[in-house]
Amino acid sequence: MGGNGAGLSLMRQEIAQQPAALRATIGALLPRRAEVTALAARTGSVLFIARGTSDNAAVYGSYLIQAHAGRLTALAAPSIATTYRARVDLDGVLAVALSQSGRTAEIVETLQWAGACGARTLAITNGGESSPLAQAASVTLCTQAGVERAVPATKTFTTQLAALAVLVLALGAQLDAGELRAVPDTVESLLAEPAGLEPIVSALAEVGGVVVSGRGMAYAAALELALKLKEACYLRAMGLSYADLLHGPIAVVDADTPAILVAADSGPTLAGTVDLARRVTGAGARAFGIGGGAALAGACTAALAGPALPEWLAPIGLIVPGQLVSEALARRLGINPDSPRGLTKVTQTD
Amino acid sequence: MGGNGAGLSLMRQEIAQQPAALRATIGALLPRRAEVTALAARTGSVLFIARGTSDNAAVYGSYLIQAHAGRLTALAAPSIATTYRARVDLDGVLAVALSQSGRTAEIVETLQWAGACGARTLAITNGGESSPLAQAASVTLCTQAGVERAVPATKTFTTQLAALAVLVLALGAQLDAGELRAVPDTVESLLAEPAGLEPIVSALAEVGGVVVSGRGMAYAAALELALKLKEACYLRAMGLSYADLLHGPIAVVDADTPAILVAADSGPTLAGTVDLARRVTGAGARAFGIGGGAALAGACTAALAGPALPEWLAPIGLIVPGQLVSEALARRLGINPDSPRGLTKVTQTD
Repeated sequence: MGGNGAGLSLMRQEIAQQPAALRATIGALLPRRAEVTALAARTGSVLFIARGTSDNAAVYGSYLIQAHAGRLTALAAPSIATTYRARVDLDGVLAVALSQSGRTAEIVETLQWAGACGARTLAITNGGESSPLAQAASVTLCTQAGVERAVPATKTFTTQLAALAVLVLALGAQLDAGELRAVPDTVESLLAEPAGLEPIVSALAEVGGVVVSGRGMAYAAALELALKLKEACYLRAMGLSYADLLHGPIAVVDADTPAILVAADSGPTLAGTVDLARRVTGAGARAFGIGGGAALAGACTAALAGPALPEWLAPIGLIVPGQLVSEALARRLGINPDSPRGLTKVTQTD
Repeated sequence: MGGNGAGLSLMRQEIAQQPAALRATIGALLPRRAEVTALAARTGSVLFIARGTSDNAAVYGSYLIQAHAGRLTALAAPSIATTYRARVDLDGVLAVALSQSGRTAEIVETLQWAGACGARTLAITNGGESSPLAQAASVTLCTQAGVERAVPATKTFTTQLAALAVLVLALGAQLDAGELRAVPDTVESLLAEPAGLEPIVSALAEVGGVVVSGRGMAYAAALELALKLKEACYLRAMGLSYADLLHGPIAVVDADTPAILVAADSGPTLAGTVDLARRVTGAGARAFGIGGGAALAGACTAALAGPALPEWLAPIGLIVPGQLVSEALARRLGINPDSPRGLTKVTQTD
């Protein structure tokens, strides 16, 4: 609650803390690459174990590792472990559990199950080395986000993404760690209220629902924005990949159900996202862009600038305008973004 | 278009064709188990390749194989193959591609990519042995649904589920093939307009959106119902697993956004679904149940009976009341369920 945060929601303050949180996390975790490389020796595929916001981070990790480290990835269904109590052969698998608190019992239990099934175990958590999740893992990458008090996760999400970028480097991706070190400064540049925020927030305050879409790396940022809009704004937000949207749900887009399209400024999925924006507006619906440079902005009804980051790191910056939209929209709708109805900070599911 | 179909939508007629389609499919595919077992020899994990409705079938296959055949499963991101053009090590992986038409270029290309990356390749399609997908696979399980003309898939979906039940048997699951043979008769019993359909359709005609949820095996039926409601009824339907719903999106459920909860009549996920129904109604929202026996019906605002099937096969029957709701709701809203806006039968994505 520093002096410069007076009057701002906790969520808004924590959004602004992301450059410092990212700097601390990247500084702490990049030196630990060799440890992760050693843990992953003689493993092949990667199994992510996560829920909610952490699951959206896992989607980023999944694309990143497949596209740049050549390993198969899977997202665990924790109920296989905790409800069906099945034994799955995980020999040669690296299990990576993500939990901001490190205290969600279902995630801790599923990581323990993965270890018992033969997997090597890695934890990514903001809960510290003493958290139950860290205790259950062979190696833990602790994010350095500090305490997060608003219920909607912001800085614990982007620091998870940074930890996953460290993971892909440790798995041998031919990517430049220097580009990762530049991320905090780029995120800093996104924190000033972006030009064009107000009209988009006003438009979203009037709609009955929204589709949020992106492809490849950017899909994770789209899913996370859809989650933020549901939990902080009670907006009926449907997070769908670009391709899944075209397989049926495109029918739901109409004058009262716009699309928010998220893309990096470069990379192989940008052209398809621009085409999708044209298809949405051609059908008489509005498309709001986040990122994607001039190409996406030009095809959309309105757009917010994204980060000047290479595609593999873009999601860390792409979620920031989305966080700002969610926080401003919640307040516009008379919702306290820090404590949405029905939610607590640590969610326990059986 | 037979005499008894006069006046009914194609979708409604095809819903009614499911018992015959399932009988033909199960009869054709059960004898081919040994061939699939041989293909899968010396493989470990299973990689599903699918989009849209077929992706929901893959979710069923994923739970089924992990819970009952002890193998790790993953859902492919086709853009890794077709957009990022990455090479992923798939040695020891069984790749299973699902496509009703067998002609979606992205799915054909991704299966070819999987083969080139070292995977064994299996296709499940209603497009026949001469379809491009079947041509790309080492072994093909052809579903016997006949021609499907309505855009929303019904009988091609349930026959895909039946093919996946054959797959899990071929992978060594200790399950009873006789229970699978009994499925068509059980589905037949669900075709008469269910008691309680009309009030639920009327209620859904008035809402701004809906959450559809289920856990474990039933999650696939929930996702498929959410897709049907989006594509055939333009309803803002959010398909979420039971646990993911509690990690944030539960906030979106309110008086104008009810939940539809899907569960088998037995099995380890039923109790959690009943608890969720109580939580939804306790928050002042409506919960509509599909399946889950007296326990779920008793905890919901209104409910439709599900199939009398063991949990591992329940999704094949659980989607049927959902199909009937979707078809009736589309007509109530003045939409032709056979050809929703913006959609064609074979979707091509790059």
